[in-house]
Amino acid sequence: MCQCAKKPVKVAVVGIGTIGTGVLKVFEENSALIEARVGLPVEVKWICDVDWKRERPVDLSRYRKTSDYREILKDPEVDIVVELIGGTKVAGDLILEAFKAKKHVVTANKALLAERGDEIFAACEEAGVDLGFEASVAGGIPIIKAIKESLAANRIERIYGIINGTANYVLTKMEEERLSFEDALKRAQEKGYAEADPTLDVEGIDAAHKAAILASLAFGGRFSLSDVYVEGVTKVKHLDVLFAKDLGYRIKLLAIMKCLNSEVELRVHPTLIPLDSSLAGVRRAFNALSVVGNAVGHTMFYGMGAGMMPTASAVVADVVDIARDIVAGASKRVPVLSFRRQQNLRVKSMDEIVSKYYLRFSAVDRPGVLSRISGILGSYGISIESVIQKGRKESGYVPIVMTTHEALESKMKAAVKDIDALDIIGNPTTVIRIENNLD
Amino acid sequence: MCQCAKKPVKVAVVGIGTIGTGVLKVFEENSALIEARVGLPVEVKWICDVDWKRERPVDLSRYRKTSDYREILKDPEVDIVVELIGGTKVAGDLILEAFKAKKHVVTANKALLAERGDEIFAACEEAGVDLGFEASVAGGIPIIKAIKESLAANRIERIYGIINGTANYVLTKMEEERLSFEDALKRAQEKGYAEADPTLDVEGIDAAHKAAILASLAFGGRFSLSDVYVEGVTKVKHLDVLFAKDLGYRIKLLAIMKCLNSEVELRVHPTLIPLDSSLAGVRRAFNALSVVGNAVGHTMFYGMGAGMMPTASAVVADVVDIARDIVAGASKRVPVLSFRRQQNLRVKSMDEIVSKYYLRFSAVDRPGVLSRISGILGSYGISIESVIQKGRKESGYVPIVMTTHEALESKMKAAVKDIDALDIIGNPTTVIRIENNLD
Repeated sequence: MCQCAKKPVKVAVVGIGTIGTGVLKVFEENSALIEARVGLPVEVKWICDVDWKRERPVDLSRYRKTSDYREILKDPEVDIVVELIGGTKVAGDLILEAFKAKKHVVTANKALLAERGDEIFAACEEAGVDLGFEASVAGGIPIIKAIKESLAANRIERIYGIINGTANYVLTKMEEERLSFEDALKRAQEKGYAEADPTLDVEGIDAAHKAAILASLAFGGRFSLSDVYVEGVTKVKHLDVLFAKDLGYRIKLLAIMKCLNSEVELRVHPTLIPLDSSLAGVRRAFNALSVVGNAVGHTMFYGMGAGMMPTASAVVADVVDIARDIVAGASKRVPVLSFRRQQNLRVKSMDEIVSKYYLRFSAVDRPGVLSRISGILGSYGISIESVIQKGRKESGYVPIVMTTHEALESKMKAAVKDIDALDIIGNPTTVIRIENNLD
Repeated sequence: MCQCAKKPVKVAVVGIGTIGTGVLKVFEENSALIEARVGLPVEVKWICDVDWKRERPVDLSRYRKTSDYREILKDPEVDIVVELIGGTKVAGDLILEAFKAKKHVVTANKALLAERGDEIFAACEEAGVDLGFEASVAGGIPIIKAIKESLAANRIERIYGIINGTANYVLTKMEEERLSFEDALKRAQEKGYAEADPTLDVEGIDAAHKAAILASLAFGGRFSLSDVYVEGVTKVKHLDVLFAKDLGYRIKLLAIMKCLNSEVELRVHPTLIPLDSSLAGVRRAFNALSVVGNAVGHTMFYGMGAGMMPTASAVVADVVDIARDIVAGASKRVPVLSFRRQQNLRVKSMDEIVSKYYLRFSAVDRPGVLSRISGILGSYGISIESVIQKGRKESGYVPIVMTTHEALESKMKAAVKDIDALDIIGNPTTVIRIENNLD
């Protein structure tokens, strides 16, 4: 409405690493388009970093440089601060101070939101400014806006996501090039898809951070990392990848978020999904999220979940969004959804979940083995869907693979414990959950 | 900002057919969620239809009923008018009158926007109100918002879409159940996926309407139906579906929109796409759109492209969007993109496009046939990628199938004309374009 004096919208970018450089590139390359789409120029005025020596593939001479973000917060011209320094301490302090200075903030920092979300969102609300965090989940895929706006007419029932590109790259290479987990990870590191210390990615922590954010938005609660059950992909064996394929499945590191009758499931673990499902087709470092709403039914969103330019696309989309609000004289157009946990939302423990299972037993090659295993499963009320017994020998034992119908996780755990105690069993049984009903 | 006196946002729904009923259902089932997400109640006050006798699976008693939309436009309480009557005459007049009465409008009417878009968008701009049309393209898939907002940092380079559920259902059944086009269409009609008169869907007109709208938004021009080259699926033979599969492809009715150096390609036609591409996995009545932006790279959006509830989800998302603007005291936050064609955007004629091709010749079974065909292709500079010659007889002739490397369409047309004039050729050659580089 007001478009007061038609002043350009001014932006400061704090942290000129890979993503920060990408953001500057987007503003360089697409500035005319962005101006047309906002109705006013949107200009990066300040850039802030502690290291100005590093070579960057953009011309930095046009920006004001500083190594102290407080200088930026003092500039009344700055409308939007983009936080790209990562970590949870300094980044969090910067954002809280920016709110106090009445600056809007855009961030890509999933760890910060998953760990200090309560504090950040409360301060945002109090300051009456806006916080964009599209880039914090699934990089270039506009999943945050989809949940907050495009699917706003829906009660979101389930989200299934491949939201860690590193883990997905490793699993893809294990299957397609028949590599072990270790070799596939090495390949990912060579190609730049995995960091030197890949723990956060391959142990599922990164995906769990993102799942906590998505579940908070989708279900209207406030969930943190500790609410999410996490298993990484480090224990996935090449053997299981092959057996899965024989059974018509592919193993993916899936983030699963469900909300039914105020009971919430939040979990990240390797999962067998049907080969012909859309998510099974998501290869290499791509990400995808299936979202099921009570009106829209099944939707899916696919794209690059990380990388300089896809993430920069999401960061700048948030900047454009806030700039449009500024131009229209609005602010916080999309209300911060309820970020305190609703009384009536309860996170289920893993013992309570119901799933189908893939089981790989390592058993001696002797008559009666199958009947003893299936006898124990039966005694817990777990029924078997299919069995594969093949000659593949593994350290003297024969692998027996079963898939089960739906069972309670607590019963499955107890059954596997009993089975692993049998004298016919070698190594501990491999248990991987199955999700069948993805679309 | 203002949230003036916290009045509920009032909505009128005009046209209580399938989608209109779905909209009322969404408001019934999800009203508490919608209120929480908007910050104020959003209430349907009026419903308008010419037929109140038909049974509908919702309780209509709570709404004010009318058969004259002018009554609604006179009500100063009504903020948003939802147009769901379809057609281009009355629906267009209603929308223009609603704009004059300063009502925001939400519509699902793709034909109207493709055919009378100039008039509608100009009137919208003049009135200073907003127009939501998410439901007009791809039903429940939030592709309009993705292009206008989520990908606003990008120059959109290409969009490939499966945006007609009927045609996709027919093609899926032809492949999976080995049906002829006619039988597959009959199946679609029985299942409610095709209308009694399926012309708009199977001839590609419906997809072309949607392509015109998407291209207008994505490339910032103003394109209408006449700018889109259209071929439907009626001539796709079961034989071609099988040959395509042998070659590693699936036939889909693809809407293709490209913009490179201010030159635009807009076309809807059967297309061979790689079996392992995401779009090839889109089955039955689902829709999907691949969007390529210069920052984000390749993205894909998938969901139900039609049907009561998915379309209602999109309609209500637009209502929520406008309601949030009203609550925030803003309006037309997202500027109407340039709707007059930009001087510098030129739509290419089909003769100018470059594509790979699938060719099925129907030739006599005699030595030298292959050399004569390939000789003519060679004389036009068209090089062959692969050849299949199989014993499948078709009315006395043998099918010879070739795929070519990229060639200019005008040369391909000329070559096929020369080939079809040969005495060794029976029926006219089948020509289907190939898109290889989808992700």
